[in-house]
Amino acid sequence: MCGIVGYIGKDQAAPILLDGLSKLEYRGYDSAGLAVSDGTKIQISKCKGRLKVLSELTNGGLSIQGTMGIGHTRWATHGAPSDTNSHPHYNSNETIAVVHNGIIENYSKIKKRLEEKGYAFQSQTDTEVVVQLLDYYYKGDALETIAKVMTKLEGSYALGIMFMDRPNEFYAVRKDSPLIVGVSENGNYIASDVPAILKYTRSVYYIENGEIVTLTRDKVSITNSDLEPIEKELKTVEWDITAAEKGGYEHFMLKEIHEQPKAVRDTIMPRIRDNDIVIDELNMSEEDIKNLKKIYIVACGSAYHTGMTGKYVIEDLARIPVEVDLASEFRYRNPILEKGTLTVIISQSGETADSLAALREAKKQGIKVLGIVNVVGSSIAREADNVMYTWAGPEIAVATTKAYSTQIAALYLLALRFAKVRGTITEERFDSLLQDLCKLPEQIQTILDKNVTQIQYIASKFVAVKDSFFIGRGVDYATALEGSLKLKEISYIHSEAYPAGELKHGPIALIEEDTLVTALLTQESLYKKTISNIVEVQSRGAFVLAVTNEGNEEAEKVSNMTIYIPTTDSHFTTSLAVIPLQLLSYYVSVGKGLDLDKPRNLAKSVTVE
Amino acid sequence: MCGIVGYIGKDQAAPILLDGLSKLEYRGYDSAGLAVSDGTKIQISKCKGRLKVLSELTNGGLSIQGTMGIGHTRWATHGAPSDTNSHPHYNSNETIAVVHNGIIENYSKIKKRLEEKGYAFQSQTDTEVVVQLLDYYYKGDALETIAKVMTKLEGSYALGIMFMDRPNEFYAVRKDSPLIVGVSENGNYIASDVPAILKYTRSVYYIENGEIVTLTRDKVSITNSDLEPIEKELKTVEWDITAAEKGGYEHFMLKEIHEQPKAVRDTIMPRIRDNDIVIDELNMSEEDIKNLKKIYIVACGSAYHTGMTGKYVIEDLARIPVEVDLASEFRYRNPILEKGTLTVIISQSGETADSLAALREAKKQGIKVLGIVNVVGSSIAREADNVMYTWAGPEIAVATTKAYSTQIAALYLLALRFAKVRGTITEERFDSLLQDLCKLPEQIQTILDKNVTQIQYIASKFVAVKDSFFIGRGVDYATALEGSLKLKEISYIHSEAYPAGELKHGPIALIEEDTLVTALLTQESLYKKTISNIVEVQSRGAFVLAVTNEGNEEAEKVSNMTIYIPTTDSHFTTSLAVIPLQLLSYYVSVGKGLDLDKPRNLAKSVTVE
Repeated sequence: MCGIVGYIGKDQAAPILLDGLSKLEYRGYDSAGLAVSDGTKIQISKCKGRLKVLSELTNGGLSIQGTMGIGHTRWATHGAPSDTNSHPHYNSNETIAVVHNGIIENYSKIKKRLEEKGYAFQSQTDTEVVVQLLDYYYKGDALETIAKVMTKLEGSYALGIMFMDRPNEFYAVRKDSPLIVGVSENGNYIASDVPAILKYTRSVYYIENGEIVTLTRDKVSITNSDLEPIEKELKTVEWDITAAEKGGYEHFMLKEIHEQPKAVRDTIMPRIRDNDIVIDELNMSEEDIKNLKKIYIVACGSAYHTGMTGKYVIEDLARIPVEVDLASEFRYRNPILEKGTLTVIISQSGETADSLAALREAKKQGIKVLGIVNVVGSSIAREADNVMYTWAGPEIAVATTKAYSTQIAALYLLALRFAKVRGTITEERFDSLLQDLCKLPEQIQTILDKNVTQIQYIASKFVAVKDSFFIGRGVDYATALEGSLKLKEISYIHSEAYPAGELKHGPIALIEEDTLVTALLTQESLYKKTISNIVEVQSRGAFVLAVTNEGNEEAEKVSNMTIYIPTTDSHFTTSLAVIPLQLLSYYVSVGKGLDLDKPRNLAKSVTVE
Repeated sequence: MCGIVGYIGKDQAAPILLDGLSKLEYRGYDSAGLAVSDGTKIQISKCKGRLKVLSELTNGGLSIQGTMGIGHTRWATHGAPSDTNSHPHYNSNETIAVVHNGIIENYSKIKKRLEEKGYAFQSQTDTEVVVQLLDYYYKGDALETIAKVMTKLEGSYALGIMFMDRPNEFYAVRKDSPLIVGVSENGNYIASDVPAILKYTRSVYYIENGEIVTLTRDKVSITNSDLEPIEKELKTVEWDITAAEKGGYEHFMLKEIHEQPKAVRDTIMPRIRDNDIVIDELNMSEEDIKNLKKIYIVACGSAYHTGMTGKYVIEDLARIPVEVDLASEFRYRNPILEKGTLTVIISQSGETADSLAALREAKKQGIKVLGIVNVVGSSIAREADNVMYTWAGPEIAVATTKAYSTQIAALYLLALRFAKVRGTITEERFDSLLQDLCKLPEQIQTILDKNVTQIQYIASKFVAVKDSFFIGRGVDYATALEGSLKLKEISYIHSEAYPAGELKHGPIALIEEDTLVTALLTQESLYKKTISNIVEVQSRGAFVLAVTNEGNEEAEKVSNMTIYIPTTDSHFTTSLAVIPLQLLSYYVSVGKGLDLDKPRNLAKSVTVE
């Protein structure tokens, strides 16, 4: 979970590399480094800490001469964050430099073998074995050496590689970690992700597993691992870079919370035509939909939580059995994928390593894959049979908000479409659900307009706590999972979500005086049950925050604080109930003075396992 | 989650009631109370705190005269533990007394109506409305009044009821909460569970929903809610009461941990004949097994965790899709139960309210139900189509150990039987798995013999911590869930289990210097992946305890402490890996000086939702 960049061209390399890295900090930010060649030697500058530290150290890059270089921003996997463990790594006589995103799984075996041959290692990283192996095999032919080293490595990697004695070209390869190449008049670039080079060019190559790229000042050539040339299509990126700015908000997360009405509208409305739902990109005939036996939803983190909501909604409306699985579990489970199953892979970045592997596992078994993805042209978008894009726009904050909301919206669309085609709901019910669906963006706006002051006040109660629980039943449990994760990731509060009915089977032992419990009650048929659970924790001293529908005064009576959300169909309440929970975690984090757009230990896009 | 008792006969009632309640403390113990009639008045004694307090208050019951009475031990649902909220509850002129196990869901509505009619309420409980309603309708005919009140109550209840002006009989009814009636020469009894009366009689009636019981000194008569007499069969209980004693161990939990080799052997061995697995009570032909399309495993708490292990093992060996669901979610989910599905309900007590409701939901939809149950004759055992008993013997400690281990063993038996019949494993593989299965009891014994000192030492590291994480992949995740719950329920440490691959999607933000992480590595094919995750948390300062197979030294290298378990087939590792985790939670709780057989807020058998 790191970011890499590289540049060769007419201009001074270091400032371009630093600028590129600043766009990749979402991938990791515990240390950073550069390696630049001035034609005679490779100069390496690297240090622990945010990119800012490196930038100050090198005067914004200006103090490093040279027009070819590679750079890295790190999220530690092997070896704690430190100057020594930072990338780039180099061999003992500093003639080869490497930056790496991924994990070399057999590094300890390689390390041991090289140590027996007299190699000394400086760092605790898995990456250092790559540069030492290159040193071991290098006899003057760079491509041949790289191809040889690739056969020795197990795991995942995107690598940028420079040799001191080859000052007019550098190299890049990938396996299971993302890598793109940018092409421009002023030079050529590599990067882990598009934003790093968007300032310089919109012409990119998407590099595939096993491909080796050679970049010179005016040319990019690509070969396969047998070093045979490959012809690749140059693609044009359509992104709008200004969308990635904060637009007056204090943090990206707050901006993205407020962009949700638009993001949800942009995801829903283009798919509604003549009072019907049309999902062209689904590529399923009515017959296909009627024959659907089962849906597997596979994802990680918050996207997994959208799958949990999706299960409730799809099963209840379209009566198709849905199994939701974590990608990291699914891929090693030897899953039973029967014919007539649809696999849905959900990922904001489209680069989540485990989700991508799950996609490949499903395809290998001959099962159709639908990707629900935010980043156009990402690996999952390219490899899925069909892609339903969420139109959230670039999401920068590590804690997802608007991507989550658009993924939920996409699942509602699928549920309604399936239900209508399968005849499991009446025309009238469909029409009324469609109306409620279309109202969601403005209802989200209402919460953002009305509830912020109240939530800021409630957040002040949470700032000092160490533990918290979120409870709910049915769809509310799925929402509780997301609310709890938000608090965990940006506020460092040990928060845990439980199905309300499970509290009594263990976790209630942790409830003591003033333990904070957030209870979700948006399902009318389950009100009474959850109220009983509130009463149970309250009679043991818990301080209860209820999030419930307007009019449910019974909940207010048994709770210490209550947030009301507008009325919608019971299937769609996640879209509304999650908004106050996002705001709550945001204001708790602000209250604690944390760096909430970049929480410790986390990265935006998890491209390692 | 309370316990009720009642007695009418020749002897002094109060000592008998106190003795009965002492056997029901596992159901709740935050307060207790008695109501005894001496023929002219009803005397009520009740107080907050353990039963001991009430016993001292009444000189072991001797200071209360009378030969008819009802008693209660409470686990608070509505209204905090207090003298006033303790049962029995009575009307304002103290002529009617009631004890109640369950939850009256519409109590606030009834309360409001009675208040409008001038009734004054003393407690915050839901129960008090029952006695006030009785008072409101009572004109001299007890049975008619009780039947009338039952029509007004929503929710669950087992009730014991006395009227001052009827000194020679008392009454009991139930709906969705357990109730038995005991019959003896010396008098007649009611109780929530068999142990309460085992000292006095082995002849019992199991009362069903909606039945009303009248007990006099020499007779028990039962009617339906229309007050028509019902003929019921008197059953004989076969239990051995001495098994419920501690047998030299400091706590029931430690005794039960050490009983696991025997319990697992007792569950497995009677079902192995001529090198084959024979599960007579399954009542499924080979054809039925071959046609199985799906298995739903439904349970709560630790039993749910056994289902998680069961899913991995059954899916992988027998290639039948398995969905595991929490009973509290399943019952309100409107689940899609296709033909050819088997529903397996797992419960130690056989009285878990949510699991029982799930059983009924499945049966309503015409799906076959197999119960995996420990208590013979319990509600789930009686209502399931077929029952596979776990032969763990009585489990007294609130935190389950031996029942869990026997449930796991029962699921292995099912998996192997299914796999053999369906031909998804070879004869040789079956034989080798069967051999490994039979070795489990002695391997558990080996861990108990060898590892205790090491675990006591490790436990000393855990005593002071507030937060902890358990991680694992595949089967190891299922085991991690159980290890984490154990620590939570008896040590009050906020412990959480995560699939190792999910850590990076949020929870790793909570890892800081010296956070305790327990990592399970028993699946050889996943070693490397989990080791990468260990390295990630360790490089952020976590203190790592690894539980892994003998010989996996790679894990020891990256961990701070390592516990080795004997080698078995990768499908069976839960049975061994869970043992050190049980011991760990036990010794942490001992280290903290907690009342570990009866952790705060918890009850053994959860008979409310």
